[in-house]
Parts: sequence; C-alpha cells; structure tokens
Amino acid sequence: MTEINVAFAQTNPVVGDVQHNLALILEAAESVADTADILITGELALSGYPMGDLSYRADVIDATLSALDQLVAASTQEMFSSLYFVVGHISFATDARPTAQSSLAIAHNSASVIQNGTIIGTYNKQILPNYDVFDDWRNFIPGNNELVFSVSGKKCAVAICEDIWDANSSRPQKLNELGIDLLLVLNGSPYTRKKAAERQVAARSFQRGFDLAYSNLCGAQDELVFDGGSFLLNSSGTTLFKAPFERGCFLALPNSQSSFVEDELSTLWMALVEGLKQYCQKTGQHSIVLGLSGGIDSAVCAALACDAMGASNVIGVALPSRYSSDHSLSDAAELAHNLGIQYRITPIDQVHQAFEQTMDFSALAAENLQARIRAVLLMGISNTDGALLLSTGNKSEIAVGYSTMYGDAAGGFAPIKDVLKTDVWRLAKWFNSSRGSALIPVGSIEKPPSAELRPGQVDSDSLPDYELLDQILTLLIEHSATIEEVVANGFQLKDVVKIEAMIRASEWKRSQGAIGTKTTAVSFGTGRRIPLTTKFRKL
Amino acid sequence: MTEINVAFAQTNPVVGDVQHNLALILEAAESVADTADILITGELALSGYPMGDLSYRADVIDATLSALDQLVAASTQEMFSSLYFVVGHISFATDARPTAQSSLAIAHNSASVIQNGTIIGTYNKQILPNYDVFDDWRNFIPGNNELVFSVSGKKCAVAICEDIWDANSSRPQKLNELGIDLLLVLNGSPYTRKKAAERQVAARSFQRGFDLAYSNLCGAQDELVFDGGSFLLNSSGTTLFKAPFERGCFLALPNSQSSFVEDELSTLWMALVEGLKQYCQKTGQHSIVLGLSGGIDSAVCAALACDAMGASNVIGVALPSRYSSDHSLSDAAELAHNLGIQYRITPIDQVHQAFEQTMDFSALAAENLQARIRAVLLMGISNTDGALLLSTGNKSEIAVGYSTMYGDAAGGFAPIKDVLKTDVWRLAKWFNSSRGSALIPVGSIEKPPSAELRPGQVDSDSLPDYELLDQILTLLIEHSATIEEVVANGFQLKDVVKIEAMIRASEWKRSQGAIGTKTTAVSFGTGRRIPLTTKFRKL
Repeated sequence: MTEINVAFAQTNPVVGDVQHNLALILEAAESVADTADILITGELALSGYPMGDLSYRADVIDATLSALDQLVAASTQEMFSSLYFVVGHISFATDARPTAQSSLAIAHNSASVIQNGTIIGTYNKQILPNYDVFDDWRNFIPGNNELVFSVSGKKCAVAICEDIWDANSSRPQKLNELGIDLLLVLNGSPYTRKKAAERQVAARSFQRGFDLAYSNLCGAQDELVFDGGSFLLNSSGTTLFKAPFERGCFLALPNSQSSFVEDELSTLWMALVEGLKQYCQKTGQHSIVLGLSGGIDSAVCAALACDAMGASNVIGVALPSRYSSDHSLSDAAELAHNLGIQYRITPIDQVHQAFEQTMDFSALAAENLQARIRAVLLMGISNTDGALLLSTGNKSEIAVGYSTMYGDAAGGFAPIKDVLKTDVWRLAKWFNSSRGSALIPVGSIEKPPSAELRPGQVDSDSLPDYELLDQILTLLIEHSATIEEVVANGFQLKDVVKIEAMIRASEWKRSQGAIGTKTTAVSFGTGRRIPLTTKFRKL
Repeated sequence: MTEINVAFAQTNPVVGDVQHNLALILEAAESVADTADILITGELALSGYPMGDLSYRADVIDATLSALDQLVAASTQEMFSSLYFVVGHISFATDARPTAQSSLAIAHNSASVIQNGTIIGTYNKQILPNYDVFDDWRNFIPGNNELVFSVSGKKCAVAICEDIWDANSSRPQKLNELGIDLLLVLNGSPYTRKKAAERQVAARSFQRGFDLAYSNLCGAQDELVFDGGSFLLNSSGTTLFKAPFERGCFLALPNSQSSFVEDELSTLWMALVEGLKQYCQKTGQHSIVLGLSGGIDSAVCAALACDAMGASNVIGVALPSRYSSDHSLSDAAELAHNLGIQYRITPIDQVHQAFEQTMDFSALAAENLQARIRAVLLMGISNTDGALLLSTGNKSEIAVGYSTMYGDAAGGFAPIKDVLKTDVWRLAKWFNSSRGSALIPVGSIEKPPSAELRPGQVDSDSLPDYELLDQILTLLIEHSATIEEVVANGFQLKDVVKIEAMIRASEWKRSQGAIGTKTTAVSFGTGRRIPLTTKFRKL
C-alpha cells in the first residue's frame, strides 16, 4: 500500500484563463501543504479542457507556460518545500509528429512534475482519443517518454486519461518492469451516467502491481461536465479513497473515504445543475428565463435553474394561447410559487391574431406559429432583462424532431437535451422526493404530455408511447443498433422504421440546436457526427 | 508520357445511397468504354463522402460491398472487357489499428481495381487527415499496402487524397523504386477559392518520375462542394489535361484540354450555386423562400437560388416595417422582377404593434424584434409552401455576431455564410456583368449597408468599414493571427481588439447557425472547433 499522501486537486479551469486556473491550483496546494506529499490536478488543469482548436495557438501555449513558470516559482515557498506538484498543461511539442498524423497540431497534452522550484520532468500524453467528443489526435501530437520520479523512496510514473484505457497495450507491463510503486493519472473525464464505474474498471485493468491515483477535473465546459470522483487504488485494485463530485482538494488518506451517497438520479441531477451553472458562470450570465408550459420538461428545467443560479435569478413565463388548458396555467403558477421564482403571464393571442391577419398559415405552419411567437417574446425578455433563455426540450423530442425550429428549440442552453422523456419523469419524482415536497406539481408529472398545439392534442397522437419510444431510441442512438437489431430486441418493425426515419429527417434541426449537458455515451452534440444529407435507409 | 487513356468519373454521390452511386459510375464507364483504358472515380465514390460516423456502421459497409460486387459483375460486360475500374469505397478494415489510434473506426477508406469480373486488388488510404473538416483518423483505420498493377505494359499504383500531400514522406521515392509509370489518385477534395492551384502544386511535389492522374468528385455534400477539376500530369509535371467544374466523365486525351475559363469569381459563383442546389436535391427540397430586404446579401442569395433551383421555384418576400425606407421596397421589387421570381409583400407592422402591446421591449430587444417577426413569417411560408428558407447572412456579419438569433439567422441553409461582405459586393457586380444587365439593382449594390433597425441606421454605426473589417477578419480567422500580428500588419489596436472580442462573444450564435457552403480555408462550420466558454483574450 502506498505510504505517500496523495491529494487530488479537483479544480474547474476556464479554457484560456490561465491565471485563474493557476490560482485554483495554488489554493488547492495551500489547503493540503502540511500533509500531502503529492498534489495531482486533472488533465490540462492549467490551460482548461477541452481546448478545441485553441490548442493550435502559440499565444495560448505561451500564456500557459508563463503560468507554469509562476507555479514553479511559487513551489519554492516554505510551505511547499516537500510537496510534489503534478500539473496538467499544454506545451509546445518536443516529439516529432508521427508519419500517420496529418493535423495542424503543434502541442503536447502534458503533465509536469514540479518540486521546490524545479521542473523534475514533463510527461506527454501518448494515446490521443479520437472518438465521441474527443479530438485529441486533431489537436495534439502524441508523446512517447516515461517520466519516473521518486517520492519518499517510492517510484512514481505519470499517465494522462486515455493512456490507461487500453489494458492490452504493452505499457502496463513496461511500467511494472520499471518497478514503479504508484501511477499518477491526470484525467479530463466527462460525466456520463455510467462513467464512474467504468473508470474504476479501466484503472484496475491497467494495474500491474502498482498503486494508481486517478485525478479528475470537477466542473463543466460547454456540453461536458466533469464530475470529480478522483480515487486511489492500492496495487490489488482495492479502492482506498474516493473523492466526491465536488470542487476542492481532497487528501487521499487511507480509510478516510467519504461516506457520500452515489445514487444515479441524484448524480444526474448534480451533473445537470453543474452543466447549466458553469455555462452561465463562464459566459457571464446572471439570470435565466424560460417558458413554463405547465408540463414536465419546463418544470424540471425551472428546478434545475433554481439550483444552478438561485430562485431569485430565474424568470418563469407562462405564455398561454387560445389552446392552453386551465391546468397549464395553474400548474405553471403553482410551480413558480413552489420554487419561489419570478413569474410572469404573457398571453400570446393578440400577437397570434395579428399574425393570422397578416398571412395565411397552413395547418403545419399554424401549429408552429404559437411556439415561434413564444420564442420571440422569451427572447425579448432575454434581451431586455439580460437573462439566458433555456430551451427545455428533452432527448426523446430532439431525437425525432418533435420541436419547432426558432420556437421551443430556441435558447442559449438546453439543460435536458440529453435526458430521455421517461428519465425526465424519474428526475421530477426524485426531485420532489429529495425535497420532501411536491415542488413540481403532481399534475405536471401525471398528465399526458401535450404540446397543446390544438384543442385536446396530446403527444401520443403523433409519437409512440414514450416508454416504447425511449427504449427504441436508446438502441438506435446509444447502441448504434440497426433496424434489424432493434426488431430482434422485440420491437415492432413499423415502429422502428418510423422512428428511424424521424431521426434521419431531423438531423438538420439538431445541427442548429442549443448546446446542453452530455449525460450519455452518445448525446446530440459534438460527439455525434452524421451528415445532414444522407440516404442510407438503415441509419 | 502515359500512353494509357485515363477517364475521370466526376460523380456526385449521395452518402449511403450506394445503388444510386453505383449507377453514376456505370453510366460514366459506358460513356468512355470504347476509348478509355482506366476509369478512375473520386474518393469513396461508391459510398459517398464525407461519411461522418456512418463509417462506424457495419450495415453501411455491407451495402457498399454489395454494390461493389455488382460493379464486379457488371465489369464482365463485353464493352468493359478492356477497361480497368479504379473505384473508391469503404471496406471492413483488414489492417490492424495502430497503437496510437484510439477511435471507434472499423473500416478502411479504400479503392479497388476491377477488371473483367475480378478485383485485382484493394488499396487502403494511408494518411488520414485530421484537421479542418476532415475527421478521417476518427472514422477510418489507415492502410499500409501498395497496389501495383499493369495496364498495357505500364505499371500503375494507387493513392487516395491526403496520401499525396506530404512530399517529404518516403512514399514518392518508394513508388519510384517500384518503377511505376502512373499514379492514380482518388480525391474528395473540397472547393476553396485557392484549392485548384494548391492541388496541382501538391501533385507535382509528390511526383518522382511518374505520371499522375488526379480524380475528384463533382457535386456537394452538406457544407462541402467538390469542384471536379480532375487532371493528368506527365512525369515532368506538365498538365496534359484538366477537367472542368462539371459532372460527367472526362477522357484525358492529351491535347484535348478543355478551353474553359477559370475566373475566381465565376468559380466561386458556381460553387455557391452547386452547394445550395445539392443541399436542396439531397434533402428533397423543391423550392426556396427568402426575405428580400432590398440589400445586397438577400439580392445575391436570390440570384444564387435562381441559378440553383430555377426562378419559378424561388419566393422572394419583402417584409417592410415602420423603419423600412422606400428604396428597400423598390429595390426588392426590382430585383424580383429582374430575376423573374415570385414576389410577395408582407408588412410586419400590425404584428409589430401587437407585440409592443403585449410586452415592453428594451432598445436592444426592440431592434431584434423586427428580425424575429420576419423569421416567423418566413418560416410560416416555409412550412405552408414547403420551401427551404435561406439565411442570407454573410461571413463578416456572422464573424462579429451582427445578426439576430431566430431572426435573420434563421434558415435551413446559408448560401453566403463563408463569403465576406466585400466579396458579396464583388459577386453582385460580377453577376450583373456576366448577365450583361443590372439584374441586381444598382441601388442594392451602392447604398450604405443597413439593417434598418432604426430610422437612418447604417451598419457603420456599430461596425468598422467593411473594407477594413474584412481584412482584419481574414487575418484573425483564416490566418489565425494574434492581435499583435494583425496590428503588425498596419491595423489600429482598438479596431482589432474590438473585432476580436466580437468574434469571441458570438461563438454561441455560430454554434446554432445554419450550414452553408465552405469557400475558404477556415469557414464557420465543422472545420472550426472553438469552445463557446473561453476567456483567453487573444483568441
């Protein structure tokens, strides 16, 4: 068992704001300076992660390296005299570009070990992921060096994230032959609902007789949430310590394991709150506006907004039309009252009539008209009050294109775009249960979903039942199943064919969609890249 | 000099529609069967290109390989008895994934040589680009074999696109040592304004004593236009033949070089027409609607729409507000008349007043309100008439965020999103000149640009002069220059700082933008990947 005290700095860097990111690391170091031997940050904690094509910019790299110099200088302070910093940062590539790599990359994804004014060495990420949201091979040149250093007589080595996800590579054996006692792994590992368990499995598979310290970022960047959860495994793969989904610095004292609960829905809720909160903070938004339809999606988004920004910074707007039912308004009002948010009622019928007097709308156009009038009013409030408009669509709707472009699809952030409708209901019930009160009105949870486009209209007029729809969507999207494979799972061919066609036909809508937090292996974001114009029938 | 007759099949495949793509290749082959020795297609001509993550799908690969089998069977026809087919297609990977590659790829980007019922061999692309719009390393596994075969006693080898862009690789020398006479290069090389010349430079740099036949696709897929221009170089690098920007099959008979003119603006126009036309055709759109402001952007878009879909399939709508000037309406009417498109006038003031009576709008919100009302009406026409709405913004506006979300930014396709304002003017003048008549009214070209958000308002109230703006934008975006570097080019620091900040602040708007044709090295599309939340000051 490691006799080295490892501290995990679960920081929330802002891409490019290297002085801010440096301050976070130093603050973490100060909090554990008297007890920790090693402070390990997340991947690229000094630069921010992911950087996208900012990694091409020499000025961004220069700024990061200046901050690294400041960190080296700070490490000479008395309190840090025996502390090893293991810090993630971008650096100018020193290794040559492999023949196979045709990119514009000029940098390594690096981690430096710093001790008392000296950079002991710099490690460069070797395995550069190029799937899902990851574009590392586009943006970085791979490294090929080992960095081994000793702390209190124990040999340590460094790896970065994807480096440890292939247990069949020759590297675990190589590290074992080098006789290392502890592998320090810096990660920028985005949250998905199953990721926490997958990380531990990957880490254990990579171990060959050495302890392993896995450090992760904690915060969010655009569509990605980083859920902390840093952990320390002994050489047998036993978890000695696991940090919570919480920013801060966590000293991995054996047997000091936190007793926090890891319930899937509560963690999902935290991730959704964090994704929205950090998007607001990192883009300078101070308040949120959203339409309240009385339905479940907007109710859950309003609750998330409260947890992210505080109820006093949330404006809920009911925008009743001639087709709105009484319960729509009463459920919206009850929700706003329960959450304590600002509540406004803005009827749309006068505008609706003016549009109808201006032009003839077909039935389809007329259905979309209401949603678009609401978007204009909500964006009016967004511009007038300086509030971020939320798009409240869920993954089921977005998958099949059941939304109005420039209507309910409008918004700067879509908090539940990667949450299926059936999970939205689960979240709502979990939320009420966790608060010990039906803050989200029972009516919103229990009534049949309806866009209220026509009198008496319900979603099930044009969509399969959501329980069915969500299972098929999960197979088609998350598991990339073919139509035949979905049918082999017991679903009706006509349902699967219809849903698959709806997914294909709405590719263009998603290409214009607001970003929102990724919660699954395949979300509708930068990690899914499908042509808009394609005619393959089994997509 | 090659004594082999090479024919270039400049087809326009649809991704996934392999039967259609097969038919195009066979049609090309039939047209040259009596004279050609080799028929060479563009890259992935049987599957479609780019495929995005469809390359992960076994069913897509299976369908392509079935079509390839059909092609092999067809090659036994008497007329093809002496013809070698060199055809691009996806295939299941036979080579192992390199250690450095961490992706979900299962396929090669291949080209097979087929002769009289036999696949002589299959070549797999070796260099997989991973920059700009190219995600080949994400989607394919690299190959490492040479495919050498003889035609009429001449030795031929095969390469695919990026394979020949590194003249410093060891491969040109290797091909020379193999004694090849002719290198056949299949390309999916997207149009940019400078690309045609760059291709010839790259090809010549790669030659080591062998002739080179460079084949390209011709058509468009989403944001990419493929501009044909296949060419044949003798071993000295002299261009023996160059095909036009035109679909069809071109036999590279020496000295048969076409006499077509390659003027930069006329080619740009053709590319913009082709991008729009193919987006409509491949998504099943039959008509186009757009708002006509009387300004230059909508005028150029209307002219492009006419060339893409025919004037009778284009609906131009004037949507005058209380701030619209007389010349806005008269210029719009004149344009519609000159082009022969459908013309409608839909005043927005009644709706505008209804909105004002419904809610209080701040000055900013009020400016955006008009644009959003127009979008609702235009989308109403789009839904009612089944017409594709164009977003008419130019690259200069989009770069600095000078557009209204869910207002003028709304639309399914943005034809001039990668054309700077000053180039829009040039295109308008070129268009009038090429048609021998001022179809685009002189007033639209000459008046000061204005969004007509307030009485007397002009763009230059809030933006630098476009001549200045466009030069700075070109440096910042296309040349990735830092603020310091732009200033060193003779621009004022305050202008550059302001523009750079506007680019950063509007990243979120572009993330929701309609797709449109790429015409430059760095367009606002899938080839530019910048985080929305970043605080680096020198982006």
